[in-house]
Formats: sequence, C-alpha cells, structure tokens
Amino acid sequence: MPDDNSEAKHVSNAKHNSESKRVSPLTMDSQQFREAGHQLIDQIAAFLDTLPHQRVTPAESPTVVRQALQADRPLSDRGQEPALLLNRAASLLFEHSLFNGHPRFWGYITSSAAPIGALGDLLAAAVNPNVGAWLLSPVASEIEAQTIRWIADLLHYPTDCGGIFVSGGNMANHVCFLAARQAKANWDLRTAGLNGVPLRLYCSKETHTWIQKSADLSGLGTDAIRWISTNDQLQMDATELREQIRRDLAAGERPFLVIGTAGSVSTGAIDPLPELAAICREFDLWFHVDGAYGALAALLPDAPSALSALKLADSIAVDPHKWLYAPLEAGCALVRNPDKLRDAFAYHPPYYHFGTEAINYFDLGPQNSRGFRALKVWLALQQAGREGYIQMLSDDISLAQTLFQLVKQHPALEALTHSLSITTFRYAPPGLTLRDERTQTYLNDLNRELLTRLQNSGEVYLSNAVINGKFALRVCIVNFRTTLADIQALLPLVTKMGHDLDTELRPQHLAP
Amino acid sequence: MPDDNSEAKHVSNAKHNSESKRVSPLTMDSQQFREAGHQLIDQIAAFLDTLPHQRVTPAESPTVVRQALQADRPLSDRGQEPALLLNRAASLLFEHSLFNGHPRFWGYITSSAAPIGALGDLLAAAVNPNVGAWLLSPVASEIEAQTIRWIADLLHYPTDCGGIFVSGGNMANHVCFLAARQAKANWDLRTAGLNGVPLRLYCSKETHTWIQKSADLSGLGTDAIRWISTNDQLQMDATELREQIRRDLAAGERPFLVIGTAGSVSTGAIDPLPELAAICREFDLWFHVDGAYGALAALLPDAPSALSALKLADSIAVDPHKWLYAPLEAGCALVRNPDKLRDAFAYHPPYYHFGTEAINYFDLGPQNSRGFRALKVWLALQQAGREGYIQMLSDDISLAQTLFQLVKQHPALEALTHSLSITTFRYAPPGLTLRDERTQTYLNDLNRELLTRLQNSGEVYLSNAVINGKFALRVCIVNFRTTLADIQALLPLVTKMGHDLDTELRPQHLAP
Repeated sequence: MPDDNSEAKHVSNAKHNSESKRVSPLTMDSQQFREAGHQLIDQIAAFLDTLPHQRVTPAESPTVVRQALQADRPLSDRGQEPALLLNRAASLLFEHSLFNGHPRFWGYITSSAAPIGALGDLLAAAVNPNVGAWLLSPVASEIEAQTIRWIADLLHYPTDCGGIFVSGGNMANHVCFLAARQAKANWDLRTAGLNGVPLRLYCSKETHTWIQKSADLSGLGTDAIRWISTNDQLQMDATELREQIRRDLAAGERPFLVIGTAGSVSTGAIDPLPELAAICREFDLWFHVDGAYGALAALLPDAPSALSALKLADSIAVDPHKWLYAPLEAGCALVRNPDKLRDAFAYHPPYYHFGTEAINYFDLGPQNSRGFRALKVWLALQQAGREGYIQMLSDDISLAQTLFQLVKQHPALEALTHSLSITTFRYAPPGLTLRDERTQTYLNDLNRELLTRLQNSGEVYLSNAVINGKFALRVCIVNFRTTLADIQALLPLVTKMGHDLDTELRPQHLAP
Repeated sequence: MPDDNSEAKHVSNAKHNSESKRVSPLTMDSQQFREAGHQLIDQIAAFLDTLPHQRVTPAESPTVVRQALQADRPLSDRGQEPALLLNRAASLLFEHSLFNGHPRFWGYITSSAAPIGALGDLLAAAVNPNVGAWLLSPVASEIEAQTIRWIADLLHYPTDCGGIFVSGGNMANHVCFLAARQAKANWDLRTAGLNGVPLRLYCSKETHTWIQKSADLSGLGTDAIRWISTNDQLQMDATELREQIRRDLAAGERPFLVIGTAGSVSTGAIDPLPELAAICREFDLWFHVDGAYGALAALLPDAPSALSALKLADSIAVDPHKWLYAPLEAGCALVRNPDKLRDAFAYHPPYYHFGTEAINYFDLGPQNSRGFRALKVWLALQQAGREGYIQMLSDDISLAQTLFQLVKQHPALEALTHSLSITTFRYAPPGLTLRDERTQTYLNDLNRELLTRLQNSGEVYLSNAVINGKFALRVCIVNFRTTLADIQALLPLVTKMGHDLDTELRPQHLAP
C-alpha cells in the first residue's frame, strides 16, 4: 500500500492540467513509464529465474488469498502511484498463484508460456490496435493473417483457408460449430432461426465439454448431441457413428456435423480421423476436428498417422496457448473455405481499401472490437522456428513416454494410458485383488485423495482423468521447461505419499 | 531480419540441451529477458512520448503494408534471436498502425489506453494464470472478482451481482443475452434447445449490431428482434415498445427481453431506462442495458438522469476497454442475480476449496481457459481512483460539448447531435437549399468523401454516423489524451477540406 505522501504527490501532479496540456490521472510520463517498466521487467526476469525452485502452488484457501488481497477494500477515491501499484500486483501474483510455467506443472492442458509471448502482449497492449477492422489495425491484421497461414502450414492444412484468433479452445470450436451450422442449413437460419429443425451432431464420449456449451448456446440443446462410444483406446467407434447417422436419417432427423478429436483432454486419444472424413463425405456432413491440444503434433516427422486426415477437415480448432506455448489467450479457428466463416458471421460486404481486399476480422467471428492475440504467437513461432517446435513437442511426448515406461516398471503403480504428451496411471499397492469391486472403489478414493495431497504439496501439479471407471492421475506435459529429472522426481513422491495414504486409509475402507 | 550469425548463435544455444537442464528454443535466460525487455520498454516510452507528433494513421493500402511485413514469407525452419524479433515487431507496429492512443483519434469507441494497462498485460502474461479455474489462478480470480465489485459500485449497481470479464461489448452483451434466454425459458432449454418457441426481444433501431449476432448465433434468428422506433433524440419510444409487446403476446409469441442502450454507438443516445424498467416489471421481462460505452457515465455527480435506472437492470454490459481506458480486450458482463449466470453456463456444482466457496469463472461464461483481463483494469482504476475517472470522463464530455458549440457557431457547419462524449455534425456550405432532396444527396456524398480525406490526412481520425438520413461526421472522445487545442484544430481542417471538396464536386453534382 502506498503511503499518504505518495498519494498526495500523485494528486498534485494531476492538478497541473491546463487547456493546452492535459495531464490526465492515467498519464505516465516517459521517465515514469521507463522506471516502472524496467522494475517490472527485472522482477519478471527474477521470477522466471527462481520459478523452478518455488512451489508449483501455495495451495492456500480462498480466505487466505482474500485477506492478502484485502478483497473487501472499496475502490479509493484518490489515485495512487503506478509504480507502487505494479509492485504490489507483482508481489500478490508471485506469492499467491499457481504457476503453469513451473517445470513440474502438468495439470490440465495449460502450457508453460514463452517469455517472448509476455513481451509480445506488452507491445500489443501499448500500441493497442483494434484488430476488428483493417483500417484500425493495418499491420496487426496482416500479422494475424500471416500467423494463421503459418499455423495452417504446420498442420499441412491449405494456407488459403479462413481463420481467426479467438480466446481459446471453447471459442475456436464454437466458431467452427457455428460455421458448420450455417453451411449445412438449407434455409435462411440467420434470419429465421433454428425453427425447430432437428439438427444432429456426432462426437465421441471423450469430447471436451465445449460441445455441450456449443450445442446449448447455439439453441440446439444438448439433446442434439449423439454421443458415440469409444474403443479401448478411447477413440470414436466409426462403425457405430455410421449406424447412428443412418438411424437418425431414417427417423427424419438432420445430421449436419461430425466432430473428431485430435488429442482428447483426458488421455490425448486421437479419433480415427480418416474414417470420420470418409463418413462425412458419404453423408455430406461437415467434418470438424477439435485439435485444440493435439493437432499441432501434425508438424512432427513421426506424427500419429490419423493426423494426416486433418487436411480433409472442413474446420479445425487449434490453441496456440497450448502447444505453441503462447501465454493466454490464444485460440485459433481454421475453416477450409473462407466464405463459410463470412457466411456465418458477416453483416457487411467484403471491404476494399485502395482497391485491394482488406480483411475485417469482425466479419469472421463473434467479436467486434478485438485485441492483437496473434502477436505473441507470431513472435514465438519465429523465435523457435519450425525445427524448434519439432524439438519441443518431441521432447514433451518423449518425456510422457518415459514416464509411462517408468510407471509400468513400478510394482505399486498401474500404467493406464499414454498418447501424445499425456500419461495416466494410478497408485495400486501390490497385494490387492484388483478385480474386486470394493477394491476398485477403494483405489478410486485412494487416488482421489492422493491427487489432492500431491497438488497441495506444491511439489508437482497433476490433474485427473476417469478411465473405464478408474480414477487416474494424469500428467500432461505441454511444458518446454520440464526435464527428465522432473519426471524422475515424480515417482518417489507418488509412491511415498500413496504408501502413507494407503496405510492410513486401508484399515477403514477395506476392513473385513 | 537477423543476420546469419545471430541465427547460428541461437541454434547453437539450443543444442546445449541435456537431460538435467532443458534449454528449449523458447528459453530466454534472465539476461536476455532483461535486455530485450528494457529495450522494448524504452521503445514504448519513446513511442508514447512522440505519439502526439505523429500521424494518426499512415493510411497505407493493404499492398504496401503486406510488402513491409513480407506477408508471403513462410515460417522459417530455424529460430531467430528474440531481441531482434521484438525490435522488428515494434518497428512494424510503430510504422504501420493507426493509433487510437493519439490525442486526435476520435473514431469509433476505441479508447486511448492507459500505459499502466500495457504493463498490467505484461505481468498477466508473464505469470499466465488461467482464470478459468480458481485453483489455477487463486489471486487472479480474486482480483477479477474485486474489479467486478468496483465496476458495479461505479455504476451504483449491487456489488453482490454476478459478473465476468469477456473479450468486449459483443461478448458481454451476448453473455447477458444468454442469461436472459435461460432465465425466461420455462422449459429445459439447455437440454431440449429452442424447440421452435417464438421468443421475442425488443430494442431500438439504434442498437449496436451485437444484437443481430446474438439473435443469430443463439438460434433465435434476427426475425426474433422487434425493432422499436426512436424519437428525435434517437431514444427508444417506450409507448411503441409497450404496444409491440402487447401485440406479440396477443399473437401467442413469447417476449422475454428488452434491451435499453446507455450510450448508442452512433450518437451516444441514452434510452429512457426508467420507463423500460417499468415495462419489464409490468410484463415480467428481462431488462438488459447495453452500457458498453456509456454506462460508466453513471459515476459522474451530474450523470444523465436516465442512468439512475441502471440499478434496476437484470444485466448490464460495460466495456473497461472503452471508458475505463483499458487496452483491448476488456469487456464486462454484470448480472444482478449471480445464480442466473451459473444457470446459463455451468456444468458443475459450485466449487469449495478448504470449505470456502471458490469462484470458477468457466462456470459463468462461454470460455474454459481464460486470460487475466482484469489486472489492467484493476491497476488503472487504482492509479486514477474514482476522482480521477470522474475528472477524465467529465473532460471527455466537456470537450465534445465544446466542439458542438464551436460547430454551431460556424456558418459552414451544421451541428447535428451531442450526447455523452459524442458530437456529430456535417459540412454544409452556406447558400444551399437544405430542404432540397438533390442537395441532401449531394451533402451526403460530400461528407462521405470529406470523411475519407480527413482520415487519410493522418491529422485527425473521425468516423461517421447516419442521422435521419444525413451522413454525419462523428467525433467520439474516449481519450484522456485529447486537449482543447486538439478539438480547436479540428474545425479549420474540416472547413478547409470541405471547402476545397465542395469547389471540386459541386459543379458535377449540382449542375443545373
């Protein structure tokens, strides 16, 4: 908190207002900006340096965090010194945050973010182009378009596709969903609405919850979703898909969209995309791939073969804030035929500037004013280059693979799945009858509690998945800071904590 | 472009990879980060310093901008030095951007952004909290909640309302729209979909295009919108609203939502919010206020009286990246009853951490992963304080008022509207018969061309509005950098260019 003197000084600065020079309460003169900026840069550099030696999370309660923030404090009437405010913000964030940039953060699919991305966001916010309209953001609009071409190229997708940066995977998928809905409606849906037409869409039971939100928010309702079963690799059953489409057609319903997942959120499973593409061709359906996490693995020389069918998709969602290691937020929607994006969102004719078509991104998505999300991605792509990304993704995958092997060799651990950079397993002490239902329930309770303790330890951060009824520990490595040593450190932690918990809990849970 | 040496050096750094220390192609060690960061801070400080002396926009064609960017260049295989990349990015942006931070930018409603906001975005991206889940962003989630309370308080809205930061006005309005749809559906809409129920919503003809996108994307279709006429102040006609609702009810249709605008995009008009609130109570409809631009004027001691009815709204959209001068993106949706946000978006029960309810923002909106948009707003609010914002908004409004008075006094200008910080007018050389239809067409053509020339001059940046058929020049001051001198400089520019154009065009257009 600033002392009274600093407040008074700041307010008196603001009083220098005159008609010809407006010194606003938000002004920072160049000296102030330089000093506050250098200080913040130094704090961030030190933070990034010490990150590996900190806890992944302080694991505090909301009450503790609210006290630190003084959450009940009202906005004060008088202004405060910007440098002091920034200092306080940095302290609060460094002391009361979970760090997904920590080498041992493997929870969810939030990546370790590239430092250049933070500097990119600084520059974007300082120049502040509104990338809704070309006239308001000439070079920013062009950089966004170039970044989209580069991402399409990494996926071996046509670089003349339509595309737009959005907030993340939910919105990228939703934008594609809405493009599909419009493309496959043979009536004037934008004017007349859904009109009770029973549109149906198809995805596996492993699909991320974005699909529920999309079906709901678009007015179809979640009943419009046909949940297709998965095989033991948790990949969509293409035979069942075809049968379900036939049944729906026979019942007079209106299939319009099949969603394949390239890298499921639980286990990194990749649906049989070539088969799904063929079925979409057969029935004239829109083929969308949710590749928010995994699509970028297509850039690897030894990419999973199913990813070769990305190029057949009508649309792809892919998140640069996942496997391109951009800071939040950066999702990206790609649509093969650019007209289909315009058809779904534009209320204006294409725009020409000095006779050349100029892209107005507000015509290609739900937003009007838009920030410059592409800059941080454009910078990181160039810093690492294509080869750098091949190296980083390969390393993430190989670390997950190594973990899977290590787990398999351990008598107290049960390896469950490995795909892309996700490995799942559970603590399963030897000597238990694993087919017994009571034991399964016990193991689920044990691993659920184990996960909480691991998270609260601050030593590592995993999340969970439920795999064929088994509560699993889930390690997702989208983290260019993770080393082999970090992965090796995980096992003793899990087995020690698992053993202690088992000793504590088994007598109550599995009493004869 | 970096030279070959720098590329080679960078790649060789990346080769230092070993198992215990992973030097990734995206690593910046603390010295690299400090140097690149300080350099960028200095460049931005210089940029902000010289901004008033630069053109508002270079007004280049897409072709020129694409050449400067080398837009056709593919992503290179090898990496490049981050400092060089940042340097090039800064140059491109400083040389080929329109600057809405320029003191003479008054186009659209994109604000001049507070420098502290850019530093806030840097810090947010460096720590990179995922403000979707509380566990992933403890203090960031709490700062977002505090910022929402502060904004609600500025609007005299209940501070225990629900709220969420989103990308901007379109999304803030859309979130409220979806909350309204869910709250007023008496069937299980999220599961069953719209089901052909003829939901109807009401707004004035001056409503921003977000309403078309919302009606369309939500599956209702734009036919569900009842466009209500406006009076000569461009405010919704409440009598017609009531009649239209009655007619629709009599026809078996289902009114659910009335949208009042607090600060229309064209002229800053404020709908008769108290009357709209009363009509919503009468017919049990959701009362939403699109206050993306103007709602914040409620914090002024002499606020327009209609804004006192903000407190009666079921939901409000308000954009910190407009009149709180935050860099893009920062929109905010406020919903009086927090449960209504959860009802529309959540797929999980409320979450408790150490026994205390912890807010998971992914349950309150369409996103899952979320960036930390609130930080820059939280910082700027404290830097200026409530008094600082009162001063800045008052100054913006009084500058627009002064412009209106100056225009009124000028024989070659026709003052059209003034509300909040928007003034509209047109060039109308004396001696023309203003009631003649041919003259009106001519004046529209003249002012349309005049606007283009003003924009391309780089001296000022206005946009346009169409007011009762008249093509108007529109000055919207959401800019704490604009001074009286800037406003005074506008008139000679407009009248000189207007005169030259009139001399050039009138003979062709108004030939006898």
